[in-house]
Amino acid sequence: MIIQLEKDISHDQKKKLQEKLETINYKGNEVNTQFGDYIVAVGKKEFDIRSIGTMQGIRDIHRVSDPYKLVSKKWKVNDSIIDLGDGVKIGTGHFPIMAGPCSIESEEQIESTIQHLVDNGIKIMRGGVYKPRSSPYAFRGLGMDGLKKWYQQAKAAGLKIITEVMMVEQIQEMADYIDIFQVGARNSQNFNLLDALGEVDKPVLLKRGISGTIDELLQASEYIFSNGNEKIMLCERGIRSYEKAYRNCFDINAIAILKEKTHLPIISDPSHGIGVRKFVEPVALASIMGGADGIIMEVHQTPEKAFSDGQQTLSYQQAEKTYAKIRKTYALREEFKRM
Amino acid sequence: MIIQLEKDISHDQKKKLQEKLETINYKGNEVNTQFGDYIVAVGKKEFDIRSIGTMQGIRDIHRVSDPYKLVSKKWKVNDSIIDLGDGVKIGTGHFPIMAGPCSIESEEQIESTIQHLVDNGIKIMRGGVYKPRSSPYAFRGLGMDGLKKWYQQAKAAGLKIITEVMMVEQIQEMADYIDIFQVGARNSQNFNLLDALGEVDKPVLLKRGISGTIDELLQASEYIFSNGNEKIMLCERGIRSYEKAYRNCFDINAIAILKEKTHLPIISDPSHGIGVRKFVEPVALASIMGGADGIIMEVHQTPEKAFSDGQQTLSYQQAEKTYAKIRKTYALREEFKRM
Amino acid sequence: MIIQLEKDISHDQKKKLQEKLETINYKGNEVNTQFGDYIVAVGKKEFDIRSIGTMQGIRDIHRVSDPYKLVSKKWKVNDSIIDLGDGVKIGTGHFPIMAGPCSIESEEQIESTIQHLVDNGIKIMRGGVYKPRSSPYAFRGLGMDGLKKWYQQAKAAGLKIITEVMMVEQIQEMADYIDIFQVGARNSQNFNLLDALGEVDKPVLLKRGISGTIDELLQASEYIFSNGNEKIMLCERGIRSYEKAYRNCFDINAIAILKEKTHLPIISDPSHGIGVRKFVEPVALASIMGGADGIIMEVHQTPEKAFSDGQQTLSYQQAEKTYAKIRKTYALREEFKRM
Amino acid sequence: MIIQLEKDISHDQKKKLQEKLETINYKGNEVNTQFGDYIVAVGKKEFDIRSIGTMQGIRDIHRVSDPYKLVSKKWKVNDSIIDLGDGVKIGTGHFPIMAGPCSIESEEQIESTIQHLVDNGIKIMRGGVYKPRSSPYAFRGLGMDGLKKWYQQAKAAGLKIITEVMMVEQIQEMADYIDIFQVGARNSQNFNLLDALGEVDKPVLLKRGISGTIDELLQASEYIFSNGNEKIMLCERGIRSYEKAYRNCFDINAIAILKEKTHLPIISDPSHGIGVRKFVEPVALASIMGGADGIIMEVHQTPEKAFSDGQQTLSYQQAEKTYAKIRKTYALREEFKRM
Repeated sequence: MIIQLEKDISHDQKKKLQEKLETINYKGNEVNTQFGDYIVAVGKKEFDIRSIGTMQGIRDIHRVSDPYKLVSKKWKVNDSIIDLGDGVKIGTGHFPIMAGPCSIESEEQIESTIQHLVDNGIKIMRGGVYKPRSSPYAFRGLGMDGLKKWYQQAKAAGLKIITEVMMVEQIQEMADYIDIFQVGARNSQNFNLLDALGEVDKPVLLKRGISGTIDELLQASEYIFSNGNEKIMLCERGIRSYEKAYRNCFDINAIAILKEKTHLPIISDPSHGIGVRKFVEPVALASIMGGADGIIMEVHQTPEKAFSDGQQTLSYQQAEKTYAKIRKTYALREEFKRM
Repeated sequence: MIIQLEKDISHDQKKKLQEKLETINYKGNEVNTQFGDYIVAVGKKEFDIRSIGTMQGIRDIHRVSDPYKLVSKKWKVNDSIIDLGDGVKIGTGHFPIMAGPCSIESEEQIESTIQHLVDNGIKIMRGGVYKPRSSPYAFRGLGMDGLKKWYQQAKAAGLKIITEVMMVEQIQEMADYIDIFQVGARNSQNFNLLDALGEVDKPVLLKRGISGTIDELLQASEYIFSNGNEKIMLCERGIRSYEKAYRNCFDINAIAILKEKTHLPIISDPSHGIGVRKFVEPVALASIMGGADGIIMEVHQTPEKAFSDGQQTLSYQQAEKTYAKIRKTYALREEFKRM
Repeated sequence: MIIQLEKDISHDQKKKLQEKLETINYKGNEVNTQFGDYIVAVGKKEFDIRSIGTMQGIRDIHRVSDPYKLVSKKWKVNDSIIDLGDGVKIGTGHFPIMAGPCSIESEEQIESTIQHLVDNGIKIMRGGVYKPRSSPYAFRGLGMDGLKKWYQQAKAAGLKIITEVMMVEQIQEMADYIDIFQVGARNSQNFNLLDALGEVDKPVLLKRGISGTIDELLQASEYIFSNGNEKIMLCERGIRSYEKAYRNCFDINAIAILKEKTHLPIISDPSHGIGVRKFVEPVALASIMGGADGIIMEVHQTPEKAFSDGQQTLSYQQAEKTYAKIRKTYALREEFKRM
Repeated sequence: MIIQLEKDISHDQKKKLQEKLETINYKGNEVNTQFGDYIVAVGKKEFDIRSIGTMQGIRDIHRVSDPYKLVSKKWKVNDSIIDLGDGVKIGTGHFPIMAGPCSIESEEQIESTIQHLVDNGIKIMRGGVYKPRSSPYAFRGLGMDGLKKWYQQAKAAGLKIITEVMMVEQIQEMADYIDIFQVGARNSQNFNLLDALGEVDKPVLLKRGISGTIDELLQASEYIFSNGNEKIMLCERGIRSYEKAYRNCFDINAIAILKEKTHLPIISDPSHGIGVRKFVEPVALASIMGGADGIIMEVHQTPEKAFSDGQQTLSYQQAEKTYAKIRKTYALREEFKRM
């Protein structure tokens, strides 16, 4: 049950509400975000929600039976829009492409990528400065030094930055240099990290776990929301399967289902979703028809020389064609709304 | 290695070829189909294929390193087209929709479905008369009686029939009443059935196994081809995964990869691929962008009363909208070819 | 609901029973096996089963809520024992080892294997004469010729034969030469084959599907039972997973759970269950502690030269040590029953 | 390649070694643990390792082709033993049972559990004070307060403590109150946490990821080792599968394979491995025959009232019988070594 509070609810009114919840054996969790104040009440008893809805200081009340609450579409029917400033928005009616290398490797590479993105009208650049790697002996990224150089150039070019954060301690130092925090698949249920990201006013792109369920992804996002940050987008990046013909199994079903279950934007990552360069495009286009609200993909000046993920990274030439098709496919999907 | 033979190759020339293969320790399998005569030679030794290619009676020779041979795109670069007669074709440049109920239930239902299909310009009707069911106590289909009634009405309306065959003994009795034999997921590696279907001159739609790999599907189709029947299409219908939010996990990656590996048409089954009515449409549209050559889907006058699979079956009203979007999506994909 | 009938129930009494079932909207399926006569009644209505139990001609009545009925432990609490004759039994209190090559390859190989089995006190020999192979160009087995030669030698040595049957047509010709029909993983839901095996009076070992669920396995065995054959054992042989370090993922959980759900004997196949020779032994021993009623495993005189599955096949020397440990582990498990 | 250094290697000798590595294009990572000093050199070139082995200051050198190095059995053939003090050891020749509740709930519960463990000769108590929960609204554990109370009682009773650590910041405050840090499945690839655990001199039990591969688990443990901590044990706790009859699929194969690949002790967690109380015992016993070096399991005074995981938790009465069987099964496995 989600109880939306009035901005000016008094301390006394709140106390009465909590007492009321106790009488029906519900536990009320107070949530204060950038956009609103809520009590998320969890319990089992059936009761008439109007008995609470009519109390003073209450703006609205919604029954939400899902294990996730605030991210559910059951109480917030309109899709959430995330505003990055400078006219860059994410969510229904806006369709961002985020592109860039797997890893930030050098200033020269940053420059080249920015030029490519600007030429193609892309506003958000992806790239890793902290890299989760299976082996401790592999390249782990350029860290804050790399991020600061990237930030300068990106800002100059009017680009927004999305990059992965791996631990709580990195949040503060990174916050000034990024526009979107990305949480990787391996940290999809790193609950302390999610808690901490709920306490900053920066958008978060949360990836589905390597074999995460749709429900686990939604509940993970609830951690962020319930700590105070409503600016969340979810990302389908393929799940682990028995099939060896590709890296991950892109779950097109999940996109359709997530669009039904949550008001948060759903971003598609076809690069990890199939993991093979020449098939990134069909998966990207398919995900749009599945309902995705945006695409994040890997591009590199010379994919075969990339420090990581080269096998799934597009060259600029390939990517340009894909961008054009992405835009046309999105346009057709929008047209379908009017059918 | 695939050796295409001349139509008029002499007995002597064939013998010399087999002797030649023996000298390099290859086993030659003779294959005679509706469209050609081949020797599929399997062995390990490296050798100069020109030494065979220049022999008399040989039309062409191709090295194919895949475990499947005749269905590989490595020797037959142009996509195969299956001609059902009366202008109904399947394969690149033609995009069939096949629709109908899960089970054929009654004459009245057949009539109603046919009317719906004719109204919507659909030429191929699906429906089961032999149903594979997990439980021996469930409805198993109307059998040959149902098929014969269906055939009469379909023929009168100019519709083609696709229906599932479950065992070798059914092939002969069914052959006169159907246009496409469907092999279900549970029989995807029923090799005796595949062998037998290779010996009839009827198109076969072969579904991927419940957790079949892409390679297993291609090798299963090689059984049909190598027994003499080139008229094969492959069908992606979702694979089994840990996720409980849907029935099967539609493998969009498989469609893109199959289009690269084989010249056979790839059909998408979004109804089984997600198993939830309201998400059939986005999965159908996505699969087109993934590269599918056609769609097979379940429709029913009153899905909630269907004998089987009602939860994933569209009503006529829903289906009509979906057909329109399918056609527009396919048109856009065709347009992409010219980009 | 399972209604056990008296042997001498009259036609009239049966008719009254069916009429009674109709009044409560249940469908009654008559089942006549080697050991008993039953009506399996399927329906949804709650009612007092005593109202049927007290009718004439009824021996006993049991409510079984599982989707499978006759194979459930809910009505038959005592484990089933399968008697192969000559003192060879399968089921609680008897622990058979079945061993032999993947494929029957030659008379010499049969002879050598039989000697090995006799030396080690093993009574049941496994081996394939019809082999399901992913590729149509692979070795498919020696067929009936091989089986007949094998039969002669096995009979002379007092060994029982278990071998795979792949299609309905093979059942009759094989029946005189085998002691147990094996249904392979790929045919685990070949319902026509299961139906037909229900009509012969020969034991059947039914393998779990490649990614079959426990419930599907039980329902598949219900096909055999409900067609008249109670002599069924189920076999865990590993399921498909994402892990690449082994061939299949042996599902130890399934053994424990199957022992709880069904009265049928559960056989463990560690050879396919892990697919790597040196780990067959620990998996075999583990499966005994998990609750298995017997082991089926691959042995070969020279595993590295076996026509198929050599990588998971034990040599005679290795196998001898494993047999000894199997027997000691089983003895300990029996001892646990008295704790 | 692992280069074991002499304790007294000089700065100059080290420099020469690094220069040598550079000439063959290897990257040398220096590792200093509680027990030794190593250079882990990663590269691709083939060369004669004796050319390094004979340099001064080098104790030994080993080629290790696995992606993990220091945890591989290829250089350290003898199994590692972890000594917790007071005669409590983990590793070949010692077979610890670790038991206790899922969550530490109250002083009374701690007391009761300790009594149960002491009565049964169990030396290591498990329990969670920081709980990873799918939902942010679920019970998250008693935290440091709970740990401190537990520590006092456990120390008084002579018991060792194993409990989960979830984030880097918790390590220091927990270190004085625990004997083994547990890393849960969701943090199995939380590389920052693993790095930090490599820097403390406390044993770590690392659980396999929810759908982690065997290789990923080994590489994750390499993070801990390469940061300086050799006291690591790995834990199989079941993987995610499509089967719905249990919570996780206990991977018995993984135990056998891990024992072959690494010198680290392998602990089995049958409670999570199947997730159903009545099947915990057979899975526990099976895992011993599979090769496990110890068992960790959940027990509770009143499982049905446990704050978490009650459905897979044994009562004291049940657990006592299981302990006895565990010990007898382990004794038989030890006996097998002498066969």
